[in-house]
Amino acid sequence: MPVLQPIVNLAELLSQKGITDVVVSPGSRSAPLTLAVARHPRLRVRVMADERSAGFVALGMAQQSRNPVAIICTSGSAVYNLAPAVVEAYFQQIPLLILTADRPHEWLHQQDGQTIDQVNLFGTHVKRSYDLPADYSHPDARWYIERSLNEAVNLCRLAPLGPVHINVPLREPFYPTTDEPFPYEQVRLIDTLRVQPALPPEVWHDLLNEWERNERILLAVGQLPYDPDLLTCLQKISEEMGVPVVGEIVSNTARNGLFITHSDTFLSGLDEAFGVSLRPDLLITMGHSFLTRNLKTFFRRFPARRHWHIQPTVDRINDSFQSLTTLIPAEPRLFLQKLMADLDFQRFLQGDEDDDSHEFLNHWQTADRQAARLVYQTIAGTDARLTDWSAVQAVLDQLPAQSILHLANSMPVRYANLCGVDQSLQIQVSANRGVSGIDGCLSTAVGAALMTDRIVTLLVGDVAFFYDRNALWSAPVPPNLRIVLLNNDSGHIFRIIDGPSRQPELETYFETPHGYTARNTADDARISYQVCETQDALRSLLPDFFAPSPQAKLLEISTDKHTNQNQFLAYKSAIGELTLKLQR
Amino acid sequence: MPVLQPIVNLAELLSQKGITDVVVSPGSRSAPLTLAVARHPRLRVRVMADERSAGFVALGMAQQSRNPVAIICTSGSAVYNLAPAVVEAYFQQIPLLILTADRPHEWLHQQDGQTIDQVNLFGTHVKRSYDLPADYSHPDARWYIERSLNEAVNLCRLAPLGPVHINVPLREPFYPTTDEPFPYEQVRLIDTLRVQPALPPEVWHDLLNEWERNERILLAVGQLPYDPDLLTCLQKISEEMGVPVVGEIVSNTARNGLFITHSDTFLSGLDEAFGVSLRPDLLITMGHSFLTRNLKTFFRRFPARRHWHIQPTVDRINDSFQSLTTLIPAEPRLFLQKLMADLDFQRFLQGDEDDDSHEFLNHWQTADRQAARLVYQTIAGTDARLTDWSAVQAVLDQLPAQSILHLANSMPVRYANLCGVDQSLQIQVSANRGVSGIDGCLSTAVGAALMTDRIVTLLVGDVAFFYDRNALWSAPVPPNLRIVLLNNDSGHIFRIIDGPSRQPELETYFETPHGYTARNTADDARISYQVCETQDALRSLLPDFFAPSPQAKLLEISTDKHTNQNQFLAYKSAIGELTLKLQR
Repeated sequence: MPVLQPIVNLAELLSQKGITDVVVSPGSRSAPLTLAVARHPRLRVRVMADERSAGFVALGMAQQSRNPVAIICTSGSAVYNLAPAVVEAYFQQIPLLILTADRPHEWLHQQDGQTIDQVNLFGTHVKRSYDLPADYSHPDARWYIERSLNEAVNLCRLAPLGPVHINVPLREPFYPTTDEPFPYEQVRLIDTLRVQPALPPEVWHDLLNEWERNERILLAVGQLPYDPDLLTCLQKISEEMGVPVVGEIVSNTARNGLFITHSDTFLSGLDEAFGVSLRPDLLITMGHSFLTRNLKTFFRRFPARRHWHIQPTVDRINDSFQSLTTLIPAEPRLFLQKLMADLDFQRFLQGDEDDDSHEFLNHWQTADRQAARLVYQTIAGTDARLTDWSAVQAVLDQLPAQSILHLANSMPVRYANLCGVDQSLQIQVSANRGVSGIDGCLSTAVGAALMTDRIVTLLVGDVAFFYDRNALWSAPVPPNLRIVLLNNDSGHIFRIIDGPSRQPELETYFETPHGYTARNTADDARISYQVCETQDALRSLLPDFFAPSPQAKLLEISTDKHTNQNQFLAYKSAIGELTLKLQR
Repeated sequence: MPVLQPIVNLAELLSQKGITDVVVSPGSRSAPLTLAVARHPRLRVRVMADERSAGFVALGMAQQSRNPVAIICTSGSAVYNLAPAVVEAYFQQIPLLILTADRPHEWLHQQDGQTIDQVNLFGTHVKRSYDLPADYSHPDARWYIERSLNEAVNLCRLAPLGPVHINVPLREPFYPTTDEPFPYEQVRLIDTLRVQPALPPEVWHDLLNEWERNERILLAVGQLPYDPDLLTCLQKISEEMGVPVVGEIVSNTARNGLFITHSDTFLSGLDEAFGVSLRPDLLITMGHSFLTRNLKTFFRRFPARRHWHIQPTVDRINDSFQSLTTLIPAEPRLFLQKLMADLDFQRFLQGDEDDDSHEFLNHWQTADRQAARLVYQTIAGTDARLTDWSAVQAVLDQLPAQSILHLANSMPVRYANLCGVDQSLQIQVSANRGVSGIDGCLSTAVGAALMTDRIVTLLVGDVAFFYDRNALWSAPVPPNLRIVLLNNDSGHIFRIIDGPSRQPELETYFETPHGYTARNTADDARISYQVCETQDALRSLLPDFFAPSPQAKLLEISTDKHTNQNQFLAYKSAIGELTLKLQR
């Protein structure tokens, strides 16, 4: 048996476990892992030199495919370069299998190159951390490797999904000789069967009673992947039960005339009476993080009497609105479908009529419509020169149906949320809102584009774009990627939010203007590049921009930070008027 | 008192503790820290948007100044982006004070943005990790902050030097109002006095006896900063005692006709008899890591009977040659100076004559001279078109005296070591050999250049250069920086070392050609750019390249990977002949 046979078998096991894609960063210590996956007939391997980008590319791939993606890197600081993607995957619940080559541990602190303390390197930001043995001669060692790999892949897929770390100490030689066999042997698979948390009948009974006891029920949806079945269910609840469904752009609860999508606008600066009028008795939440401070502040300032949070796991209390009363361990869609069925049946038995007045829902919807109009007027009020916001609106208006939209932190996702997208377009929206960093937004979009033939559009600001430009460096950029770069030459968010914009240090220490355009970056990356500054030009070039092409495309929209700021200030003062009107 | 007064005081404390420089990455959570240092009259603050670069820039600054540099970043994945620099600082023993803003801990796992588990985030790769309180109302909290900051800065400076992490949870508001006072108050300083480890007389006695008992004594120097006093001492030991002093380019023991600087060449593939003839009875080592495998393999294969390692600390046994018998906790230069004085005195008392034959030293020096000639011939044998190696030789030959040389991983530092530099030039050599990553070599050189008016030359390959190009992005590039980029369009080391060059996967999975030149990167960064392909052109443009200028300069040397490979293969076969000759 070749010395490194267990590493060869690792590739076979990944494949048999249904993993199809691996992202590799070059290295010598990691060569056995690289060769094992590169030679495997059913694994697709992509190579990225910068581990930070590699990590986020893998994240984007797994986010898109909803299947674990494996990452391989060499030992030393390479591993730390994966950490920004790993922590985003952990909080966004994206399944990643991280395979890090290591020196055998006896070499730590012996002044040997690329040798750091890799065991548990990601701390609490992985679901579990394995450390494989460096010597495979004992059968127990091989048993441990096989069992651990099975467990690790299973764990990636169990709720909550997330990253799992396997540290792989490797001894030389790393490379097979030219005529050495490289057989993928039979491996043993161990399945962990999936379970769904099931609430006992008496618990259901109590929940149904609680529902029935409350008149004003509201559903708020945090970040969730696009799921048409969930949307159908949410729509039914809203229509039949008069329940406002509040979502943000990252919730994938797009604008459909029913859902509440402009809460960020009308929940801003509301007075006590209006707040009370919007407060639900029973608040039901689901999904990951919420985007806007206005929404979070509203629910904290006007806490519901009862608050259910639905999440697939039991172990951690997520009380982000500080009003939680009941944690419901369930998959949100299954829970809501059963809830609706039970409520329907109960009402049928009781001969209840639906209360069609839906006053509470109407109240929320009225506010939402007014807010939508205000946003529309804000954008319509700008002149020919594009602002970040008006550019976002134009792009969202012309997105190809059924395409994929990636929203970078920090301003693009906020502008996109203010605009919203139309449900009829069936856009899948993704954003790195696990940790909300700007560090890997471009790489994540590249990863997503690698896993689909659909158009993947990234809305990104200049700081996030240049920060992560290595995403475009070492591998061919997928031709279905469309980058819309809002270049205002600064960290624009600092001029938009209150505190920093008042400081004399604003420009030097927060905005950090750099004077870069993306022309050279696009040129180096051999992707198509266009610049645009006016509304008309943008609207007329977008159809071609979104058309399929043999090359990825970058559209740079050059805007002026002061114009952006003025537009936002005008919007804020208009909000003041809207609030007064709504509160009357 | 303003709520955040302890944070304002923090800046005053850093300054009073002798810290002069801070590197800041923009963020809102970190704004109180940023404003505290930005407004301080005696702190120099530099802003870098990419935290990975910021970390390495700070590392380069501290490496150059030998004084702690503070780093400030915001919460979330930003912190992990510092980790590659932190781990390099830890193993290279560079003092960094890392101040990370954090959400108060109660927000962890509450779906809040940029909130990760930052306590002890750098694991065992910092000297200590502090977590400041989020509330300052109680006097004990303020006492803890003041005491911890004192301890942290002191700790950075105590041997072994290294990074210290201070996590700073911060509550809103982060920004002072326009008319709010921002006073730097009196802070309390607590000094920890420096101590030097002193060996008791009987221990000295035993060491002197052991020295006298051994005929063949050899001194090997790992990575150490440039220190003329140490060089003088080493030179005296070698001359007077006939002790070969073996150093590599990163040891700053430059070529002076005495030191052994070409061990990588003549220790390659040596036979048993020749190895035995070179083996010392007593090996004395000092400094951090050794660069070349040949040297390490030699000392492991032909272990000295006795092996002293001199390091300033007691707690960890560094046995990288697997032959250690005595760990001597001492500052190397002070130890060697006292050793020499004692030996001189002892010989004076005993009326001993120096044994001037110095056979063992001559034996090493003969091999070294032959190896130097071989290297010279290898380079002279190349034709007009430049190779990486011949370019490195040409650059080293023309370095300005008393300038600073940064050597990037992985091939540039190896080529430079094969060539060597001349002691008369008084070049300070630095390289990130703590962990030996390619991830921050450019940023580190930028950091060094910020701290000196001398010319700082970086020799860097294309993968390391593009990996870290954000070093040139968000702040003006210091005009005294000179980048010599060896662009062979690949991770060239994989073609040079044995294993991967034989694999069919070499190009796709290891070398990763990208087709980039640095023209666009230099253009974006507004630094001067030149290309060069021939020996003659290079030699004639270097004087102007090294002349002071108002702008940093990048010289791209485009080489062919096959020519590079052939030159290296020719060198290796020449080594075979040399070894045969030396062994005769």
